[in-house]
Amino acid sequence: MSHSTEIIAIGTELLLGNVVNTNARDISERLSGLGIGVYYHTVVGDNPDRLRQAVEIACGRADIIITTGGLGPTYDDLTKEILAACFGKELVYHEDIGAEIRAYFEKRLPGVKMTENNLRQAHFPEGCTILRNNFGTAPGCAFFADGKHVIMLPGPPRECRGMFQSGAEPYLSALSDAEIISHNIHIFGLGESAVEERLQGLMQGLQNPTLAPYTKLGEVMLRLTAKAENREEAERLMAPVLRQVQETLGEVIYGIDIDSLEACVLKRLLDHQKTIATAESCTGGLLSKRLTDLPGASAAFLGGVVAYANEVKTDLLGVEAHLIAANGAVSDPVARAMAEGVRTRLGADFGIGITGIAGPGGGTEEKPVGTVFVALATPDKTLVRRLNLGTDRTRIRTLAAHHALDMVRRYLAGLKEPPQ
Amino acid sequence: MSHSTEIIAIGTELLLGNVVNTNARDISERLSGLGIGVYYHTVVGDNPDRLRQAVEIACGRADIIITTGGLGPTYDDLTKEILAACFGKELVYHEDIGAEIRAYFEKRLPGVKMTENNLRQAHFPEGCTILRNNFGTAPGCAFFADGKHVIMLPGPPRECRGMFQSGAEPYLSALSDAEIISHNIHIFGLGESAVEERLQGLMQGLQNPTLAPYTKLGEVMLRLTAKAENREEAERLMAPVLRQVQETLGEVIYGIDIDSLEACVLKRLLDHQKTIATAESCTGGLLSKRLTDLPGASAAFLGGVVAYANEVKTDLLGVEAHLIAANGAVSDPVARAMAEGVRTRLGADFGIGITGIAGPGGGTEEKPVGTVFVALATPDKTLVRRLNLGTDRTRIRTLAAHHALDMVRRYLAGLKEPPQ
Repeated sequence: MSHSTEIIAIGTELLLGNVVNTNARDISERLSGLGIGVYYHTVVGDNPDRLRQAVEIACGRADIIITTGGLGPTYDDLTKEILAACFGKELVYHEDIGAEIRAYFEKRLPGVKMTENNLRQAHFPEGCTILRNNFGTAPGCAFFADGKHVIMLPGPPRECRGMFQSGAEPYLSALSDAEIISHNIHIFGLGESAVEERLQGLMQGLQNPTLAPYTKLGEVMLRLTAKAENREEAERLMAPVLRQVQETLGEVIYGIDIDSLEACVLKRLLDHQKTIATAESCTGGLLSKRLTDLPGASAAFLGGVVAYANEVKTDLLGVEAHLIAANGAVSDPVARAMAEGVRTRLGADFGIGITGIAGPGGGTEEKPVGTVFVALATPDKTLVRRLNLGTDRTRIRTLAAHHALDMVRRYLAGLKEPPQ
Repeated sequence: MSHSTEIIAIGTELLLGNVVNTNARDISERLSGLGIGVYYHTVVGDNPDRLRQAVEIACGRADIIITTGGLGPTYDDLTKEILAACFGKELVYHEDIGAEIRAYFEKRLPGVKMTENNLRQAHFPEGCTILRNNFGTAPGCAFFADGKHVIMLPGPPRECRGMFQSGAEPYLSALSDAEIISHNIHIFGLGESAVEERLQGLMQGLQNPTLAPYTKLGEVMLRLTAKAENREEAERLMAPVLRQVQETLGEVIYGIDIDSLEACVLKRLLDHQKTIATAESCTGGLLSKRLTDLPGASAAFLGGVVAYANEVKTDLLGVEAHLIAANGAVSDPVARAMAEGVRTRLGADFGIGITGIAGPGGGTEEKPVGTVFVALATPDKTLVRRLNLGTDRTRIRTLAAHHALDMVRRYLAGLKEPPQ
């Protein structure tokens, strides 16, 4: 039997635009993975009449209703009351949950008298299953009535996600007779339209698996998704398509099911037991920040210099002042000297040098905003890319760091630099 | 007359969880600012029947219906067809828009034959107003029929936002008889519950203006919002509350209507004509990245050293090796030496030193994961905070950078360090 889900998010803050409804996205993504269809998202405020009507509409068009939000202790938290009423159920007080809430307050706020409204969180529709909250105080619950599966989750995203995975997912996966499996193919160095053009023939004929492109600030991701009775069958459906994508796109694919370009580079550095150091001007530490976002970065990343002022380039990196005077700070020779300088001074296998004009000011006719030089110093040679990365400061900085990582990735994979 | 809005986002990718519905948030936020109520968000897939039903439901409960998505050239872009049908309108071909689309293709893809389906974007419900798309090809449209204002916007967020502001907002603001004005009060150094506790008396009694707290990774923001006939009246309503919040919370407020802690610090550095340099270990460049996110940072930020390996601390910052051997790299004396070293070596007015254990590995009983020392070297003294920032790597790094910025802010404002 095929199921259809409606996710109802409850909270006036969503309708005021203070908060974006990431819960619906997160839950939908997981449900897709379970092979359960989501047909509607609804957002409604903390208003009893409108919530009641929204639930009635959902009952008319879905057989799984998942709510988020409105489970807390305050007067505007109404979800359990309204859902119970819609299905003709009473709210029942659960001693054990009440005791837990009391204990929580005594432990966290000793001496402070707990206000009685907190015990509202211990009331649940009769006959429901209580879902534990591992990240907050408000438990959720689930019941089956009038042919509908009803699941109530808390609003804070971390709590919602945690409870969905620990409480709702096992229950829902039992309802599904299919699995949906995806692979994410990560690409750098080819734009979305070029990717689509090369894969056009392949993509058009596909039904199962499907292949869909997504873009994110200079990167393209292809999501390959198959629906089948089980994981093995889904993988079997995807394998030939994956192979064809790899053959068609080749070296611009930097990884499959990997978190980021920096994760790819860190992994390769660790595999090769190589170390790296960075010298950044226009990116201002963004590259080293991204490398050190990853746990375990210290085994490959030694450190870096953020050489914003020219004196820092000369004093800490040994870039000769005459190089800057003759070529400008944003130039091939300076990027090269920064990369080589930081490599030598920090004793790393690889040195990165990034210098450019992130804007909005500082552009000239010869070197407009967006001009960036990225250099990679290696034990045997130094490579440089001259880039023009548009006019948006965030984009320029992000792409400059992407390119630096891509240079390391390609070098370690034994690939040539792409033609400029 | 009071208006009620429903925003219907159309697109299967939203229901699959591939994309989060930021359009509804953006539009809701702008509508709130116009004093127009939003009562529902709905998300529906690229399915004609379900879209038709969603529009019928919306007609029963809202008088402004805003759709996003489904305006493109492909077969699953159905928004105009369905909305026109729901209101008994024909679709009409617009010569001028058709010519523009042809011209666009000839210019962008010379020699490539435009497929005829692209001209679907030149069909609109009869009698509508066409809304220009300054960021893409698909125009939007608006009409008034059967007592409902209907506005159709494109799905890509940049196009949607642009068209809302240029096309929909002027039209909608004429429908509103009130203005809603907000001020955002930014707080660092006091948790949400402590903020709420101190303001409890004030917040409970408020109707107009309202005062609501939001938290974001170590920061608290209070949004003060008033609804009135005009801006002056709204400001008049807010002034006494704002004053009371400022009196109650005092120096933990770092700014009002400011983008971030780093923007506050950069502004104060520029005001005082002071320069800064950073020495970062566990934050790995995050602090310098945040300072250089801001255009114009180069006038105050000279540069920094990311001293991940201990040798970098000694070689580039002059931290004496015996200090590290005696106290460990994560210690008060090392943070102090890093701050003083980078201040001296880069010739800055202020130096920051950050050293800590961001985890997941590296913690000890004496110095568990989350232990961070942040030092600020100034012309007259060096200040150090010892912090325990929990166990989450991202949180530890973010908060460590927050604290560094907060130390500079407080020093420049002539405030004492808070008690630890």
